[in-house]
Amino acid sequence: MLKLFYAPGTCALAAHIALIDAGAEYDVQRVDFAKEEQRKPEFLKINPKARVPALITERGILTEVPSILAYIAQSYPNSNLAPLNDPFVFAQAQAFNSYICSTLHVAHAHRMRGYRWADDPAAIEAMKRKVPDSVGACYAQIENDLFAGSWVLGEAYSICDPYLFTVAQWMEGDGIDPVKYPKVLDHRTRMAARAGVKQALAEEKG
Amino acid sequence: MLKLFYAPGTCALAAHIALIDAGAEYDVQRVDFAKEEQRKPEFLKINPKARVPALITERGILTEVPSILAYIAQSYPNSNLAPLNDPFVFAQAQAFNSYICSTLHVAHAHRMRGYRWADDPAAIEAMKRKVPDSVGACYAQIENDLFAGSWVLGEAYSICDPYLFTVAQWMEGDGIDPVKYPKVLDHRTRMAARAGVKQALAEEKG
Repeated sequence: MLKLFYAPGTCALAAHIALIDAGAEYDVQRVDFAKEEQRKPEFLKINPKARVPALITERGILTEVPSILAYIAQSYPNSNLAPLNDPFVFAQAQAFNSYICSTLHVAHAHRMRGYRWADDPAAIEAMKRKVPDSVGACYAQIENDLFAGSWVLGEAYSICDPYLFTVAQWMEGDGIDPVKYPKVLDHRTRMAARAGVKQALAEEKG
Repeated sequence: MLKLFYAPGTCALAAHIALIDAGAEYDVQRVDFAKEEQRKPEFLKINPKARVPALITERGILTEVPSILAYIAQSYPNSNLAPLNDPFVFAQAQAFNSYICSTLHVAHAHRMRGYRWADDPAAIEAMKRKVPDSVGACYAQIENDLFAGSWVLGEAYSICDPYLFTVAQWMEGDGIDPVKYPKVLDHRTRMAARAGVKQALAEEKG
């Protein structure tokens, strides 16, 4: 059975929702960031990058959200979570997820994990101050250029939707007013109403 | 015909090499970063994110290196550039490329593009100082944990190899001694000797 290592409030939620969307049999295991469990030897054997999510499969362990999402979509093709038979549209899905991981999530990470990129406390504070701008610019890009609507790719729900929903949980914390991005906000509201999303959030709390 | 927008010295090189590896018919068009062409209206119509690479296809435009690489591999299946029929190994390839784009390339970008994440000039200088550490940690991770050898995924050359080669061009500029990472250095040397890599580098100069 698949086993997802997660921490609440992280991007692991995207993989969790996709597992439910796929109808996969899975188990979840919480990694306690408050206790820095992600840096302990037992977890570094799971993911030497000291991050979540990590997905244990029968074949081995997978990391990185875009990779895990594509794996779930390809492993459960009947769930239609990605345009698997169309390399162009599949690439569009991958491009969206790549933008989230390498640009939006990275901009967000400068609020709480600035130590990754500078040692000087004043620099880390300067990074925090820019987060509303830098993350806001990502949402403007999504709103104006990347969101086909009503789902990310258009008519069809896909692995891009739980990923956008997951990072959109962080908007208020990043000092962003979601009302400025009505498509993203409407998407977040519709996602929050889905049974699978409610189930994933409940499992992460439980 | 495919058309790749690139700038020399950027991650667009990975897509360029993969196009040659795939035997694709393609054309390249240089975007002059010195003239800030990437921010001009003509280019923003190609890629509103103001970045390279962008790949024009008959179906539309693709962006983001991991997405373009997977698209090339899927569009030219006979070139065997990715484990297309094995979702697990394909996900491993995607995870490697995701790590490059969201962690290694991001760490590197703090040397010259710190303005993305802070406004304070002192903070931007503090970011530059940490680049040898933060990028070096990525190469340590690749060397110790992510590199199967002799190619990134093991016996089979894949879309991960031109991507690693491309970012490894930046090691010295980032203040990293490649000798510390012998697998990465050996990979870079073997890649540099390939005819397709020489062709891509020559076309970017030409």
